Amino acid sequence: MKVSVLKNVMGANEALAARNRELLDRSGVFAIDLMSSPGAGKTSLIIETVRALKDKLRIGIIEGDIASTIDSDRVRKEGVKVLQINVGAECSLDANMVGQGLAKLPLREFDLLFIENVGNLICPAEFTLGEHRRVVVLSLPEGDDKPVKYPLMFTKSDCVLLNKVDLAPHLEFNTVKVKTAIRGLNPGVKIFEISCKTGKGVREWCDWLVKERQGIAR
Amino acid sequence: MKVSVLKNVMGANEALAARNRELLDRSGVFAIDLMSSPGAGKTSLIIETVRALKDKLRIGIIEGDIASTIDSDRVRKEGVKVLQINVGAECSLDANMVGQGLAKLPLREFDLLFIENVGNLICPAEFTLGEHRRVVVLSLPEGDDKPVKYPLMFTKSDCVLLNKVDLAPHLEFNTVKVKTAIRGLNPGVKIFEISCKTGKGVREWCDWLVKERQGIAR
Repeated sequence: MKVSVLKNVMGANEALAARNRELLDRSGVFAIDLMSSPGAGKTSLIIETVRALKDKLRIGIIEGDIASTIDSDRVRKEGVKVLQINVGAECSLDANMVGQGLAKLPLREFDLLFIENVGNLICPAEFTLGEHRRVVVLSLPEGDDKPVKYPLMFTKSDCVLLNKVDLAPHLEFNTVKVKTAIRGLNPGVKIFEISCKTGKGVREWCDWLVKERQGIAR
Repeated sequence: MKVSVLKNVMGANEALAARNRELLDRSGVFAIDLMSSPGAGKTSLIIETVRALKDKLRIGIIEGDIASTIDSDRVRKEGVKVLQINVGAECSLDANMVGQGLAKLPLREFDLLFIENVGNLICPAEFTLGEHRRVVVLSLPEGDDKPVKYPLMFTKSDCVLLNKVDLAPHLEFNTVKVKTAIRGLNPGVKIFEISCKTGKGVREWCDWLVKERQGIAR
């Protein structure tokens, strides 16, 4: 009973995600599902990316949160269009919520769409949304054991951003160990070391993003 | 359909939690459900607490994780009994898992049981386990907006530990703002500022724990 309910839910999610992906492709929008633990720096990353790329790409944002509009208020100040989705009692965005969000957005006005997922290193890995790439932010204060403890998130992502490297001198974080663990789970994954505070690595991340988008553009 | 499945699940959880609580009370064990985001410092807190209290209280541990035995391996080195529960595809411990764990533990040998929940600021708030007190760890690098963004966790807890205060000079974290937000959600909550690295505040937290335990002991 439990398993069949779960299978139905996940099957329905896959079907809705495929529909979202078709809509995004038709509209020429490259979409990123951005995931992490609470407070790893997803919103700061979006802000730095908007600042670096706003003259090159038209960027839209979906903000997923349990409650509040704190993140969308921050991002809106950068002059981009933002849609807030509050998921209430759910622990992740799903394809149905994102589909409803896409229907409210002027997709033809975007080249790139960030979907900032709920802060959670578990549930968001289980739901595809229709995105082109999955990106996970792991901040150094969370510790270098996280890929081993939360393997699905790192297995299912196309890119891992090691954020808050400016704090490295104050932490015991083994970058070699964490990269080995991530590549053990996911050999093809791209990894960047960044700091949204100092700007380190933001250029390289933005270059990757632009290149990945070109790879799928018609 | 969705709602009734959910109601059944939560109703069953409540019933099993009540059974766990009776067993704990009968065995004279004071139980803490310890929750936080990934990497906030739950395991380090348990280790510091064991070191501070091991001559006063007999302490047992249940470690809840998605995967791996990293945390239980760390805690076992302190000479305490530890049971690992790997929750797999679930995003939290629940009363059924904890009940199965309690059946395997020599409860009469413990005065205090830490149940370290899965690293997640959302799901664990929804499941009572049979614990006497709920404690949430919020580490400063996660940011001072977390209570507003994840209100259920802070509303449902008896105690909030603001951890990693040693990193405060390198962060923009407003302690007054976060305490006001937490007390706005939960006026009676106890809040401590601690650092498991420097030991700051650990004494005050342990004193609270001992006192809370005495309050319920027969």
